[in-house]
Amino acid sequence: MEKVPHGDSLIIAVFGAHQCSEEVYEAARLVGEGIARAGAILVCGGTTGVMEAACRGAREAGGLTVGILPGDSRREANPYVDIPIVTGLGDARNVLIARTCHAAIAISGGYGTLSEIAFALKFGRPVIGLGTWSISREGSPVPLVVARDARDAVEKALAAARAARTP
Amino acid sequence: MEKVPHGDSLIIAVFGAHQCSEEVYEAARLVGEGIARAGAILVCGGTTGVMEAACRGAREAGGLTVGILPGDSRREANPYVDIPIVTGLGDARNVLIARTCHAAIAISGGYGTLSEIAFALKFGRPVIGLGTWSISREGSPVPLVVARDARDAVEKALAAARAARTP
Amino acid sequence: MEKVPHGDSLIIAVFGAHQCSEEVYEAARLVGEGIARAGAILVCGGTTGVMEAACRGAREAGGLTVGILPGDSRREANPYVDIPIVTGLGDARNVLIARTCHAAIAISGGYGTLSEIAFALKFGRPVIGLGTWSISREGSPVPLVVARDARDAVEKALAAARAARTP
Amino acid sequence: MEKVPHGDSLIIAVFGAHQCSEEVYEAARLVGEGIARAGAILVCGGTTGVMEAACRGAREAGGLTVGILPGDSRREANPYVDIPIVTGLGDARNVLIARTCHAAIAISGGYGTLSEIAFALKFGRPVIGLGTWSISREGSPVPLVVARDARDAVEKALAAARAARTP
Repeated sequence: MEKVPHGDSLIIAVFGAHQCSEEVYEAARLVGEGIARAGAILVCGGTTGVMEAACRGAREAGGLTVGILPGDSRREANPYVDIPIVTGLGDARNVLIARTCHAAIAISGGYGTLSEIAFALKFGRPVIGLGTWSISREGSPVPLVVARDARDAVEKALAAARAARTP
Repeated sequence: MEKVPHGDSLIIAVFGAHQCSEEVYEAARLVGEGIARAGAILVCGGTTGVMEAACRGAREAGGLTVGILPGDSRREANPYVDIPIVTGLGDARNVLIARTCHAAIAISGGYGTLSEIAFALKFGRPVIGLGTWSISREGSPVPLVVARDARDAVEKALAAARAARTP
Repeated sequence: MEKVPHGDSLIIAVFGAHQCSEEVYEAARLVGEGIARAGAILVCGGTTGVMEAACRGAREAGGLTVGILPGDSRREANPYVDIPIVTGLGDARNVLIARTCHAAIAISGGYGTLSEIAFALKFGRPVIGLGTWSISREGSPVPLVVARDARDAVEKALAAARAARTP
Repeated sequence: MEKVPHGDSLIIAVFGAHQCSEEVYEAARLVGEGIARAGAILVCGGTTGVMEAACRGAREAGGLTVGILPGDSRREANPYVDIPIVTGLGDARNVLIARTCHAAIAISGGYGTLSEIAFALKFGRPVIGLGTWSISREGSPVPLVVARDARDAVEKALAAARAARTP
């Protein structure tokens, strides 16, 4: 990928917690790598855990990474964030990640990840889940797509993002 | 209830959608009534549907209602809101409702309600569910308490709020 | 004042810093008292300094006070806040104070106060200044009204708020 | 400039209104061009007027542009935005622009621009003014640096940004 975005690049979010197991870290890294190889921009919360892993995978594959940070300082960004957006909004910054993407991949995660999934679905952004929350409500089929592995998650997210952009 | 809050009143949130069935409206109204009868302040998103019903029930029982509005104008508030907080933040205002309460009752609802549940759990606010989302994640028991009916929801929320305030 | 707001009470904001001189504290207390005596709701940032003084004056005169807090906890509120709104948004909560009021009184203050003045003017809320910023731009007369003292500030704010509400 | 940011690129904000005269548009375009030629990333509000002009100048010089948008859709971005951040926060997004930059250039502008100046100064970000607001408060010298022209503004902003980064 050349790092030459033009406002019409696909933007794929990775939702996930700031702490994770090694196994989840590795999956997130593969997801980041896949997003970068497809020429898409990665957006996430920009800190540690799943977010760091995804940024690292994307950076190692030559991609562009955007970290929408909760705190007051860009020093909070993991070392693989290219563009740190410093919000100072705390957890409310989750809303921005969900709005900014064309589609999202949720990896494992806690309640913050659940809030990101909820907002993305509210805003009509397709969400692909990888070992993450199951949600259901009587009479409400939830369009949360389950992926088998990192590669499958990236393929499904890219396909959904492209479809969502079709006029 | 005398309307004499002193910063140490219990604040109970009602989470729910801006559209709802008559049955859900009636349940939300009973919930609002119960919150007011207990002398607690009701906080919610301040617009229509479940939010209007809860404010109406609380107002009719002499309670105090706070509406944390998404848009730019206090005219967006339903007629039963005493204190309209005008945020202009859109759906990000859901974060504020979850932070402001001691405990919350989630009634039915869509993805916005799911985001409120997620944030409340993230912030350690007890959540009582009434015909709302089921959420689960492997290995993560979720402390979302299920209520049988409006009265039960109010009792459980008040008990949880009082317990959460104990030092 | 009876504490019986009905969504159509006048809401007057006090803008000011979390630290201030004794003289400024006393002026802010008189402003809070005047707002309460007029039956209006006081809204402010809810913490120390000018905000505490205004809430204290309003509380002592039997008024209702709303504190829109920057941090994650209601413990941040000064002891004279009746309704603590916990935002977790940091300084972005200044926007909410400016949106929520019908008119505002800016007392002394630093850059945070300047941001509140700017937003209030942007949203068409009348602003009365008491020993606060002077702002000007070539060709742009700024509708920031200067008050002589606390009493004058309250009178001008109430008059402006009532005029702004006239259909 | 190669578009290869690494999280340690300088980020320069342009503050300004969504409407402007041709003269101001031209100045903003030169400012954007200067930022890009220095290898810095441009961040701004991403819509029309001064923001479009600055993005256009930066893009034409091969730079990278980030637009922190107020509304719900990336379609709101001007055509010269590379990375659209969709906030849905309305004017509260001004806080994010002020936090994200190392230094800022304020060009002409209205109350929104004044709020950006106020926040940047609050957060310790150097601000260079080009035909913008004059602000003063008795006993408070304001560190708003006045520039003669676009070239001078860029030079002063880059110098201030570099100085601010020095440990």
